[in-house]
Amino acid sequence: MPAIFDRIAILGVGLIGASIARAAREYGAANAVALYDANPDVRARARALGLGEVFDDAEMAVGNAELVVLAVPVGTMGPAAAACSSGLKAGAVVTDVGSVKQAVVDAVAAALPANVHFVPGHPLAGTEHSGPDAGFATLFHNRWQILTPLPDQDAAYPAAVDRLEAFWRALGANVERMDAERHDVVLAVTSHLPHLIAFNIVAMAEDLESVTESEVVKYSASGFRDFTRIAASDPTMWRDVFLNNRDAVLEVLGRFSEDLAALQRAIRWGEGDTLFDLFDRARRMRREVIDAGQDTPAPNWGRDEPSS
Amino acid sequence: MPAIFDRIAILGVGLIGASIARAAREYGAANAVALYDANPDVRARARALGLGEVFDDAEMAVGNAELVVLAVPVGTMGPAAAACSSGLKAGAVVTDVGSVKQAVVDAVAAALPANVHFVPGHPLAGTEHSGPDAGFATLFHNRWQILTPLPDQDAAYPAAVDRLEAFWRALGANVERMDAERHDVVLAVTSHLPHLIAFNIVAMAEDLESVTESEVVKYSASGFRDFTRIAASDPTMWRDVFLNNRDAVLEVLGRFSEDLAALQRAIRWGEGDTLFDLFDRARRMRREVIDAGQDTPAPNWGRDEPSS
Repeated sequence: MPAIFDRIAILGVGLIGASIARAAREYGAANAVALYDANPDVRARARALGLGEVFDDAEMAVGNAELVVLAVPVGTMGPAAAACSSGLKAGAVVTDVGSVKQAVVDAVAAALPANVHFVPGHPLAGTEHSGPDAGFATLFHNRWQILTPLPDQDAAYPAAVDRLEAFWRALGANVERMDAERHDVVLAVTSHLPHLIAFNIVAMAEDLESVTESEVVKYSASGFRDFTRIAASDPTMWRDVFLNNRDAVLEVLGRFSEDLAALQRAIRWGEGDTLFDLFDRARRMRREVIDAGQDTPAPNWGRDEPSS
Repeated sequence: MPAIFDRIAILGVGLIGASIARAAREYGAANAVALYDANPDVRARARALGLGEVFDDAEMAVGNAELVVLAVPVGTMGPAAAACSSGLKAGAVVTDVGSVKQAVVDAVAAALPANVHFVPGHPLAGTEHSGPDAGFATLFHNRWQILTPLPDQDAAYPAAVDRLEAFWRALGANVERMDAERHDVVLAVTSHLPHLIAFNIVAMAEDLESVTESEVVKYSASGFRDFTRIAASDPTMWRDVFLNNRDAVLEVLGRFSEDLAALQRAIRWGEGDTLFDLFDRARRMRREVIDAGQDTPAPNWGRDEPSS
């Protein structure tokens, strides 16, 4: 299979940027990979890892690239686009990997020249680890890549979207398209709220006087530890998500708190049937997640399986 | 190694009861295992699985047993103790596996004759699966077993506690002792609240109008699916936990809600530094959980590792 893009440039070499660099070459989706990161230590690390040709300047990095991927936190997408803007090749496809789409569309579209095609995107992939060392080529394998193409673009735009879709498919992803606003509402439920809840319970546990931190850690396998994994995600990335998807997050957080208050009341008043019915409903959704192939049915994700 | 107990009886053949039955024989901790479950279908299944000698009557099951394990939901511990009470051998050790201790102590101690030794216990082990088929012999391997011995018992009591501890160690568990009240506070934080939060977010997602259930399932790998695993736990067991550890759960739930309200305010007012600091603190606790050997450092628990 010929490469989808001859040369790509990735701005931001964290978990996602490094994984795209590795995957693009491993699966032949690009012939050459240029990289830039605003942090000189990260650039040095990217060079040491051999992730591609590392530049000390964003404009230089994007020169001659047919695809430019903005792989920085949501809050710095606009500045990243502006920093490379004058170096972009005419007709280049520009995309991003931000977990919020409408705010990124607003910030990035304004910073780009008219002669490139901006196709916003979001790979639903990641781990709790961060940085260039955390990247690996199979990260996107069988994961969703959501594209939120812009409305009212020129005649060449649909071909640019198709080409970007082919690139992600070459990396092993399943590609879906939806509009930016819908994306932000769906992700508020499936990703942003779960992360917020996890951050909150872990930080709360650290503050308790009644139970020591070492007790929480010691007995964490009884439920708590699963939250610590999600809460280990990159704090800068998540700060930007919540600042930039505020309305959708506040809406679903309001629903969560309202339901939690009802649950609290049921506990206080000993309403066993209410509790049972709610727990039973929650259990059914696990079955749907398994049936949809979105998780493994192995107990504890196979984590506690006999090791010998 | 000689068996710790010649004959044990297990009342309640769910995930935990079945696992004890398998482990006790696999590791030679008991020579014979008697079983009883109030549900005839479960008894039939226990027979088919060959978990031990299955009785149709609780009193018969405990006859001649040196150890009796009550492995039923917390709310039925009292009735289970009463049902077998008249069949108990003098000097037998009676224990339980309930996730709440003070309420079980109150209910069970009152139902037992004076000539047996009741040593409450709680294995911090389990999976999201339930029932006799879900049991396996290594479930307790390297997991905590908490014993909450009763105060002011007779001279033979300490030896009974030591013997029960030896039994759990033979099954591969690490044993800790603490008082019942402390147990209930610690577990409210490390286990009960995390499960309540998970049940709540999963049930909430099912009720939303803005996002369909199939969308939530489809994109669940972005965070939500981890909550569905915890929320798949047995609803009867968890109903009883919340009804029987009400005060400790309400206390820690109040803290959680208070902190969540502060986080909500920080999002509404765009307080990025507050969000970053809190997320950064939460991340550190993950490191402590890993360092304490309570979870695997593999990304996504190894779940998304390349499968080929």
